[in-house]
This record gives sequence, C-alpha cells and structure tokens, in this order.
Amino acid sequence: MLFQVDMTVRIPRDVGGEELKKLSEQEHERAKELQLQRKWLHLWRVAGRYANLSIFDVDNPAELHEILSSLPLYRFMEVEVTALCHHPGSIESV
Amino acid sequence: MLFQVDMTVRIPRDVGGEELKKLSEQEHERAKELQLQRKWLHLWRVAGRYANLSIFDVDNPAELHEILSSLPLYRFMEVEVTALCHHPGSIESV
Amino acid sequence: MLFQVDMTVRIPRDVGGEELKKLSEQEHERAKELQLQRKWLHLWRVAGRYANLSIFDVDNPAELHEILSSLPLYRFMEVEVTALCHHPGSIESV
Amino acid sequence: MLFQVDMTVRIPRDVGGEELKKLSEQEHERAKELQLQRKWLHLWRVAGRYANLSIFDVDNPAELHEILSSLPLYRFMEVEVTALCHHPGSIESV
Amino acid sequence: MLFQVDMTVRIPRDVGGEELKKLSEQEHERAKELQLQRKWLHLWRVAGRYANLSIFDVDNPAELHEILSSLPLYRFMEVEVTALCHHPGSIESV
Amino acid sequence: MLFQVDMTVRIPRDVGGEELKKLSEQEHERAKELQLQRKWLHLWRVAGRYANLSIFDVDNPAELHEILSSLPLYRFMEVEVTALCHHPGSIESV
Amino acid sequence: MLFQVDMTVRIPRDVGGEELKKLSEQEHERAKELQLQRKWLHLWRVAGRYANLSIFDVDNPAELHEILSSLPLYRFMEVEVTALCHHPGSIESV
Amino acid sequence: MLFQVDMTVRIPRDVGGEELKKLSEQEHERAKELQLQRKWLHLWRVAGRYANLSIFDVDNPAELHEILSSLPLYRFMEVEVTALCHHPGSIESV
Amino acid sequence: MLFQVDMTVRIPRDVGGEELKKLSEQEHERAKELQLQRKWLHLWRVAGRYANLSIFDVDNPAELHEILSSLPLYRFMEVEVTALCHHPGSIESV
Amino acid sequence: MLFQVDMTVRIPRDVGGEELKKLSEQEHERAKELQLQRKWLHLWRVAGRYANLSIFDVDNPAELHEILSSLPLYRFMEVEVTALCHHPGSIESV
Repeated sequence: MLFQVDMTVRIPRDVGGEELKKLSEQEHERAKELQLQRKWLHLWRVAGRYANLSIFDVDNPAELHEILSSLPLYRFMEVEVTALCHHPGSIESV
Repeated sequence: MLFQVDMTVRIPRDVGGEELKKLSEQEHERAKELQLQRKWLHLWRVAGRYANLSIFDVDNPAELHEILSSLPLYRFMEVEVTALCHHPGSIESV
Repeated sequence: MLFQVDMTVRIPRDVGGEELKKLSEQEHERAKELQLQRKWLHLWRVAGRYANLSIFDVDNPAELHEILSSLPLYRFMEVEVTALCHHPGSIESV
Repeated sequence: MLFQVDMTVRIPRDVGGEELKKLSEQEHERAKELQLQRKWLHLWRVAGRYANLSIFDVDNPAELHEILSSLPLYRFMEVEVTALCHHPGSIESV
Repeated sequence: MLFQVDMTVRIPRDVGGEELKKLSEQEHERAKELQLQRKWLHLWRVAGRYANLSIFDVDNPAELHEILSSLPLYRFMEVEVTALCHHPGSIESV
Repeated sequence: MLFQVDMTVRIPRDVGGEELKKLSEQEHERAKELQLQRKWLHLWRVAGRYANLSIFDVDNPAELHEILSSLPLYRFMEVEVTALCHHPGSIESV
Repeated sequence: MLFQVDMTVRIPRDVGGEELKKLSEQEHERAKELQLQRKWLHLWRVAGRYANLSIFDVDNPAELHEILSSLPLYRFMEVEVTALCHHPGSIESV
Repeated sequence: MLFQVDMTVRIPRDVGGEELKKLSEQEHERAKELQLQRKWLHLWRVAGRYANLSIFDVDNPAELHEILSSLPLYRFMEVEVTALCHHPGSIESV
Repeated sequence: MLFQVDMTVRIPRDVGGEELKKLSEQEHERAKELQLQRKWLHLWRVAGRYANLSIFDVDNPAELHEILSSLPLYRFMEVEVTALCHHPGSIESV
Repeated sequence: MLFQVDMTVRIPRDVGGEELKKLSEQEHERAKELQLQRKWLHLWRVAGRYANLSIFDVDNPAELHEILSSLPLYRFMEVEVTALCHHPGSIESV
C-alpha cells in the first residue's frame, strides 16, 4: 500500500562537514537499496529546499515506520505521512 | 519537468447530483487523456478526503497552468503546486 | 491495520431538521454495523464539539476510504487520517 | 473519564545515547505499569514520527496531569489533551 | 472538575433580528440557571468580540458536552475546551 | 478590570535543577502575594502542560505589564493577554 | 488606557450598494464623533485592504466593547484587541 | 508616509545581563532621537510581552529599513511591517 | 517606491459567466493602462491558481490603495501588501 | 521560466562578525554574477526584515535548485519557491 512521505531535513550547527557527508552517503545508499526493493517507489527533491517528496509501497504502517526510523538522517527530519489509495480517475493499477 | 500538485475539491451545496456526476465523468475522461499523453504521471486519492496527490510532467509552468485551469472541476478546487527535481539519492532518471 | 480518524461535522444552514435527524440515524446505524464488524474499533465524542475521534482497523487505506466516503454524513465532514502502528511501550498486540 | 493525549517527543542534541536509552526504558516501564492499572488504555505510535496517540482513563484532569508530568520523558514532550465522552453512535459503554 | 470553554458566536445572515433576540434571551436565561447551579462558574465577554471565556465545574466531560450542546446558540458557536486542574501556586482549593 | 492571561513556560536546557526549584518557589511566593492582594484572581494549571490560565484584576494594562514582567519565571514565559468585560448573561458583577 | 484595535470588514454579497453606502456614512459619522471625544485616537487604513488599524483611549475594556459593538459595520467586522501601555523608550506620556 | 511596525524581541540565553542592559539603553537613546526627529511617531509596549507597536513616518520603505536595521536590538527582533494610509473616516490629515 | 502585491481572486457562485467575463475584460484593460503608466511594473500568474504576484511602483501607500481598491475585481480579492526596497546585492537601481 | 523565490536569512549566534561579513560579500558577488547572466532577474529587500523577494529565470527547477543550494548563505536560509507564468492581463512577454 502507498504512503506519501514528506521529509524536511534540518542539520544542527554542531554536525561537522565530515559527519554530514558520511551520513548523506549512508542515507543515499540506504535509499537506493529500498528503491531496488521497490519499497521506496519515488524520491524527488523539492526545488530550493533540503526536503523531499517520497512515495513508499509497504505492507503496513509498521513497516513504513521501521523503514523511516532507521534512515541515517531520521533524527534530523521532520516527517509527514499521508495514506494514499487508488483514484477512480487514475489509469494506474496502484 | 515535474510538479507535485495537491488538489482538494469542495463542491458547493447548489451543485446538483446530476451536474456533479457529469462533471466527475468529464474530469476522469480528461484525466485519462492527460495520463495517456504522459503529462499527468501519477494520480492518487488521499485516503478519507475528496483530494488527490498528483505528479505532472510538463514543458513549463505555463503548460501546467493551462492543463489545471481547463479541468472540469477546476473552479471547485484548491490547488497547491510544488516544483520538483532529481534527488541525488534517487535511482530514477526523472 | 490501524488509522486514527478525526471527523468534524459542519451541517449547512439549509439542511432541514427532519433531513438531519434522518441522516444522523442512518449514520449511527452504519457506525454500529462497522463497529460490530470490528472495522470501526473506537468512536468517541470530542467534548463540546460536533466532532469525533475514531480508530479504524482496516485491510488498507483503500478500504478506509471506501468506508469513510460511504458514511451518510461524509459530505458534511472535514476528515483527518493518521496512520498508526504498534508502540514499543504498549502492551496491546495491535 | 477519557482523555485523548497526543505526545510528540523532541530530544535535545546534548542528551547522550546512554541517557536516552535509559530514559526510554524507564518510560516504557512506567507506561506498562499505567496500562496494567487501566489508567493508560491505549498507546499507539504515529507512523513515521517520534510521537504517540494515547487514551487515558482517569478520575479527573488533576490525576491526568500528575501522571503525564511524572513521565520520564515529560520534559521533552509537547502534549495536547482533548476531553472525550460517549458518542451516541458508539456501542462501547465508555 | 474545571474546564475552560471559549465560545465564539457566528450568526448566519438569514437569522432574523427577532429570532436572534429570542435566542439570546433564552441563552442568557439558560446561562443564569447554570450559574445558579454552580455548573457555569464564570462567564466573561471578550472585549470587542462576540465571544466569551467561561469556566465550568462539572462531574465529567459528558456532562460538559450535554450542557454545551443544549445551549440555544450552540449551533452557531465555535467551541474550544481545555481541561484545568489545581495549580501548585494557587491559593484556591479548586 | 479583568484580563485573561495565558502563560506557557519553557525552561532552557541549561537552567539547572537547583536554579529551577528556587525560581519556582519564588514564583509561587509572588503568586500567592498577588492572589492575597486580589490582583491575581484565579490561577489554574492547564492539564498536561507547563502552562496556566490566569485571571488578573488590575487598574490598567500598565499595572498588568508591571506585574507580569516582574514574575521570577517571566523571561521563560510565552504570554497571551486578552481584555475581558462583563457579559450580559453573567450574574457576576465583575 | 490605550488599546490597539484591528478591524477587517467583510461585506456579505447580499448587502446592496445603497445599504452599504448608508452604513459607511453612518460608520464615518460615528468614527468622527468618537475621534472628537478623543476616545478613538487614531484611525489608519491598511493599504490595499478593507481594514484599519485603530488606537482607542478608553476608561476600561467594557467601554471599548460598548463602543466597538455599537459601530454600524460591527456585525461585518473581524476584530482583534491588544492592550497597550507606556513603553520605557517612548517620549509620549501615554 | 506611515508604517505600522510590530517588533518582538527575543534575547538569546547567552547575552549577559550587562550586555543586555547596555543594549537596552542604546536602544532607548536611539528611539528617543528618532522620536524627536518625528520619524518614530508612536511607540507603545504590548502589555505582558517583550514587544512593541510602533508607527513610523518615513520618506520611503528604504528609509524605514535603514532605521530598523540600525537599531541596537535589531538582530534579536522579529519585525512585521504594514503600510498605512489615510482612512476616509479619520479626522487626522496623516 | 516598490510594493509586492499578492492578489487571490475568489469569485462567488452567484456571479454569472457573462458578468465575470465582462469584469475580467475590464480588469485586464485597467491593468494594461497601469502597466503603460509604469505604476504596475510586473504582473505574473501564480501557476495553478487564480492568483497573481505583482510589483507596483507608486508615490506612496495611499496611491497604492487607491489603485488596488479601484480594480474591477477588487471586491473579490484577498490582497497582501509587502513594502520593498533596494537590496545591497542587487544591480538594479530600483 | 520564472520562479518567485522568498528567502529569509537567520544567522546563528555562533557565526562571528568576520565570518558573516565574508559570507555576505560572497553572497553579493554570486548574486551579481547571476544577475548579469540574467538568471536572477530581480532581487528586492523586504523592508524591515533580513529577507528578500527574488525572481529567477531558469531552464528548469533543477537549475533553480542548483543555483539556490550553492549560495554562500543557503544553509542559513528558509526558502519558498513559487512557479510563475504569463498573466493574461500582462503586457510583458515573460
């Protein structure tokens, strides 16, 4: 089932450049794994902001929570979750 | 280029059942055309609300405006547009 | 899976007393059916407001949307949906 | 009587991993005690957030305040309290 | 137990002067009854607004809901309820 | 004349336990003095929050400001002031 | 004592041009009276909006409420009241 | 031309008492100069808050910005600017 | 001097298609006049919304108010005005 | 294509005067380059605030993101992006 997830990242001042670079690499690696597993269906950057719009396809909210809370940058994120479903006007099967 | 579009529909009390049914059919027909043209990439229902989350792939904001403002239910919609771009952690080419 | 649903009802001025009484009865009848099916787990009144806090246990967001959008008072409701999952400190199995 | 309590936890940067782990364990222990006493009726995680939705059954608002303000993580919480009561459409006795 | 209740009244355009005058008289009559019963402890006008700040002393949220929802102007009110309790710095016994 | 004052207290992380305990005692002492002088008419705890709802009876806004800004915890407070007056439905003389 | 009052006017569609013109004239007449009495100290238009920023000098909040609620356009206004006092950096005596 | 300026001051924890006292004195000195020049027409304290409501009479927005950004406490202020003009019901010439 | 003006248009249901078409033509005519006079410097459509972002160059806020309040669609607009000035990093003279 | 960009700058307390001065110079240098390239069409200061209103003319949202995220002060900015297009009442070709 599909969930829209909006993530905004706020890095505190005391996170050093090295630490942030490493966290970002880990984040991207984890994001790619989840995309290859077709759990993280879409991942787009919001233009001009340290934020993304994502679509997840998970078995239930618990799996979604497990995935999000294990992301390397999770503790610096503000997260909004919205449950989605098939739209009668859509030609996608969902 | 990609835009996230959030549409919330509010039908006024004086729109009759027949009129609404007809408008919805026209809306879905138009939505399907635009999906087949690959302009309207994704269309999901927000669970529990008369609202959708959509992703459009258009040539520019002007084309997006032309498409949205010509939707049969446009005059009853509250619309939010967000410009998207490739995310460094995404494996989609966008 | 569990979803928190907050429903606020706003009855337009032109809905007559008779019509509203009938709609409310239909709403309560439908609510009881869904509670007996264990789809609508909890239904509480928010003190002082024409609103409720509800917990639904459904198979997916699509089923939740189908249930909510078929409620007799749905067209007069403002609805907020929040996906829930097991809390590590809870002794309920969920 | 029933109260809905929404708790969002924000851990300051200077709380160490050890301290947080210990506080969380104390929090869960206290939560379980209160659940076994049937004071804390329900405790659900909000998917994707360090937050919960809880239902308390207490004798009065003073008891609710005493319970909440004594939680080990209370000083890091943002709390919203909503008074609930029986809903005419509910089949629960409350 | 004490609850703060903020009531804002919004009279629709089609309520005639006579009807409003009658409703207001009924509202004041009911308010006085409830004050004499010591259920409605305080009732203050918010300066410059068609709104009030009230303190109720009721047995439980259900009684509060019953009282508020039976007020003659209730259907035109926007209501906010806040649960109160004894403050350690207060010399009132509450 | 009466003013509603909502005070929310936010203690910064670097205020030590000893300092806070001392400030709270001074705050309560000052609050009691002002209550005995009938300047601070009511002081209630908002259930679940480090906040209060207060009613002051002062000669003018300047006196209110002088009182509030001299409270020991004032520099950690977020304060909202609302001017009140007699309500036509109230049986209190104000 | 001084109060800042922000008034925003929203004229419903069914108020005719004649009625509105008459109400505006009555409003201005009343405003001038109150200015000559030095109750309504300042009255400025907010550029681009059907709104004003006003400063009143009244004996108490009750007088302010009486003045505002008797304005010819009051029933179409959204009003915000803020209590003011002498600023230590001001050279006005207030 | 007139501008309403709302300034809210938030002093960070690490500004010492001596520094703040000095800054406040400089602020008041500067405020008095600007009042004597009739640039800063009015300066009122918002009761209960470290905030003020001010009216400036400047040649243009650039002069207003220059004045505000050179205030000793400017870096700790949250500022809201509103353009004002003559109100048809006012007896002031502006 | 420059002002940013955000205008959002909300046409009530009872404005007929003919009336709206006529008002829009008058609005565009007036907008062109003001652009040719270099009062209305820029006028852009916000993509997806019945709204615009405009830059005005006027002598003072009073002239801005006079211009805006005389627009044919003004009574259906929600207007936000922001005073602008030269930015130190800009190569425009303003 | 055009985008409105609102940037608000918040400099943390621990950025020294020297560092800030250097960053501002770099920011202005970069802003001038981009203006000369006609990518950054307009740059105005919001009067009274450490904020600007900007208009960018870029090839796509990705270019906009690249430009904004490479600004020297970007990490201290809160950014809002709005897609613009030709307005039917405008005499500019866009």
